[in-house]
Amino acid sequence: MKLVSFRTEQGDRYGVVAQDGTVADPRHADPSLPAALNDLLADRDALRRAAGAADAGARVGKLADLELLPAVPHPSKIICIGVNYADHAAETNSDLPPYPTVFGKFTNALSAHGRPIVLPAESAEIDYEAELAVVIGATARHVSEADALTHVAGYAPFNDVSARDWQSRTSQWDLGKSFDGFGPVGPYITTADEIDDPQDLTVRLTIDGEVLQEASTGDMVFPVRRLVSYLSSVITLYPGDIIATGTPSGVGMARDPRRWLRPGDLVRVEISGLGALENPVVDGGTA
Amino acid sequence: MKLVSFRTEQGDRYGVVAQDGTVADPRHADPSLPAALNDLLADRDALRRAAGAADAGARVGKLADLELLPAVPHPSKIICIGVNYADHAAETNSDLPPYPTVFGKFTNALSAHGRPIVLPAESAEIDYEAELAVVIGATARHVSEADALTHVAGYAPFNDVSARDWQSRTSQWDLGKSFDGFGPVGPYITTADEIDDPQDLTVRLTIDGEVLQEASTGDMVFPVRRLVSYLSSVITLYPGDIIATGTPSGVGMARDPRRWLRPGDLVRVEISGLGALENPVVDGGTA
Repeated sequence: MKLVSFRTEQGDRYGVVAQDGTVADPRHADPSLPAALNDLLADRDALRRAAGAADAGARVGKLADLELLPAVPHPSKIICIGVNYADHAAETNSDLPPYPTVFGKFTNALSAHGRPIVLPAESAEIDYEAELAVVIGATARHVSEADALTHVAGYAPFNDVSARDWQSRTSQWDLGKSFDGFGPVGPYITTADEIDDPQDLTVRLTIDGEVLQEASTGDMVFPVRRLVSYLSSVITLYPGDIIATGTPSGVGMARDPRRWLRPGDLVRVEISGLGALENPVVDGGTA
Repeated sequence: MKLVSFRTEQGDRYGVVAQDGTVADPRHADPSLPAALNDLLADRDALRRAAGAADAGARVGKLADLELLPAVPHPSKIICIGVNYADHAAETNSDLPPYPTVFGKFTNALSAHGRPIVLPAESAEIDYEAELAVVIGATARHVSEADALTHVAGYAPFNDVSARDWQSRTSQWDLGKSFDGFGPVGPYITTADEIDDPQDLTVRLTIDGEVLQEASTGDMVFPVRRLVSYLSSVITLYPGDIIATGTPSGVGMARDPRRWLRPGDLVRVEISGLGALENPVVDGGTA
């Protein structure tokens, strides 16, 4: 099932994307379903019922015509993993870490498919990072690697947009990763039952058709099950929380010459089975 | 005005602490006041009305008898500033930074006055950090230093509890700062109108009466108005967001011998005019 969040005149809604690209509101057919997406994600039975109700439910429109929200509109946190692909570690002259490198993207950064990445006057080095986003389902605390994936509700493409000059101003990366709009996620969540193996997906980033990043999630240093287990050993992961699992090689910072985002770019993060997240780049002065 | 948040059988509430230590519910006398604390914090007129309504409102009990929540129960983010006192920079062999060092504490870490700091089996180096917490009022984006304090709703004591072994595992600190319960804030918010100068407060941390940290907020490298302005230049600060403004010297990590938190400790963060935040330390096995 593909879950999309969108704005309507009656308020924010989630819906289910059908094969033909139309979106159904499962709460039309089954009003007992949770109103909040995070509550739906937490409940496997409700997810199953939503899939059935969507088939019977009223179509609200075509995906392309809706005003999309971030695929998870209200995560309590966005946890990012650095240096999680060996080739990206090499291109940034980083050692392969014995533990996951964990930093945060403040939630003001969240953005949606189709929304612009605004180049701010405050930075001259805005970069892209294609990533697999893991969306937490059931609350996770002290979860084993063997059980970890049962706490994952689904997956989505994510762009960990980064202001490199701000990221490297101090030892801590968070602020350079958290400018408003620097966390596009979407277009939708693909529920975990549709993904046989999260370590067998192809992540690809293109700008205006040029392939700049392409890798298999099988190359992750710390796979999804390990990340969920490790994080949950000390913090509670809540329904709707996002784990951005790191980016492979090919980022703009590591190219020669460096390749920063430019007004007019259309950045596309595509992951096999999960769809494509597209965001146009605009100048801050014209946003 | 001193605003406290607490749990009742009818749900979570905020209240106003009177001189005699009793707490009044201002919405008894003025039901038009916002139900959510963040909405109250965002609205100066509502804050003024809440102060008046509290005088007329029903007492709900004594502060000491209530089940307190974090002074801000639902911040969208907790932004922490590292290395913001010269003496703490010196004791940790850090250079004085040209820019604020910004990291995040995931919101699962939030805790309240009186709640235990649980020593987890996963760390052997749990440390304290007394800090002044700034609570955002009106949404702030591109705010000048001159206007910054008009976006501050109030202040509270904060303890930036830190697992030093986890903090130093990788280059990024966030995870070692974000264990469940590692962000006690309270006991209440003191509204900004009661604080003549946030750079003229004494921050003191004691354990069982022994003074381990004591400094003036006048010694901050980056004062509150500068932090709010700097952060708002690239990210939006929302009502209820917390900025933990850094800790002075005297942390356990920098002592000889090192002084980690131990079961039975009572950690107290006291700031002049803002009250005292107390948290008992307990072993994870007994929590």
